[in-house]
Amino acid sequence: MSAVHPELYLEDFAPGQVLRAGSFVMTADAIKAFSREFDPQPFHMDEVAARDSLFKGLAASGWHTAAVSMKVMTSGPFRPAGGNIGAGLEELRWPQPTRPGDELRVETEILQVRPSASRPGLGWLKVRTTTFNQKDEVVQSYVANVIVRSRSAA
Amino acid sequence: MSAVHPELYLEDFAPGQVLRAGSFVMTADAIKAFSREFDPQPFHMDEVAARDSLFKGLAASGWHTAAVSMKVMTSGPFRPAGGNIGAGLEELRWPQPTRPGDELRVETEILQVRPSASRPGLGWLKVRTTTFNQKDEVVQSYVANVIVRSRSAA
Repeated sequence: MSAVHPELYLEDFAPGQVLRAGSFVMTADAIKAFSREFDPQPFHMDEVAARDSLFKGLAASGWHTAAVSMKVMTSGPFRPAGGNIGAGLEELRWPQPTRPGDELRVETEILQVRPSASRPGLGWLKVRTTTFNQKDEVVQSYVANVIVRSRSAA
Repeated sequence: MSAVHPELYLEDFAPGQVLRAGSFVMTADAIKAFSREFDPQPFHMDEVAARDSLFKGLAASGWHTAAVSMKVMTSGPFRPAGGNIGAGLEELRWPQPTRPGDELRVETEILQVRPSASRPGLGWLKVRTTTFNQKDEVVQSYVANVIVRSRSAA
């Protein structure tokens, strides 16, 4: 899974870059399996119960959308040297749920690039990660601080 | 899984309440299985590769910690009427990774309670959800806005 895209170092990133990855199709079976294990609420596991919920139909757990977004992202060109490691996220949003059959893709936009003040050889990226469905509707977005190695430490 | 704790309505919540749930033990096998499916990076899948990573040992994907925290939370007393549905999160942090053998528990602190201005019968809770390991170290925290039904709509 790492053969296609090269690792990128601090010096390879610049604000305004957009790295695109995907796609992945969410099935009803996958939605139900994830929910049974991690988020066992009726609107994530059963079509009939979901109709009477706030979701008005079967909806993936937001954490499932997040996990699948990570899966898609790790298959794409956003490959910070040292690993895609988020120390924290801001503004995690699920504007609408992922539905059975949705085809998800992920865009990572580089917002800021800076060397670490305290740890030589490392730097920080601020990125906005957005997950779209096949209708180009946003199903998830967040802003993350991601640690990355600089070439000087390679 | 819903038989033990009753659903709670907007009127049942007050700032300062802390609802405790848990626990769940993270195994190395579970860490690797989740990572293979959703976050296939060496430090989440292989002890040897993990030793040379920023994690200095096998570490769960942050999204795995998040999913398990949801699992623990849904088994506990924080049961907003209509479902535990987050529209968005702020300040999601993983101060340190979850490790094999960690026993995780979750505390949900009610920060704010307010009726919806636009949707009669609904309200919003602002909560801080914190996941601790068996040494009472924080492995995850976030602040979420959660929708909840009011008794007037029940």
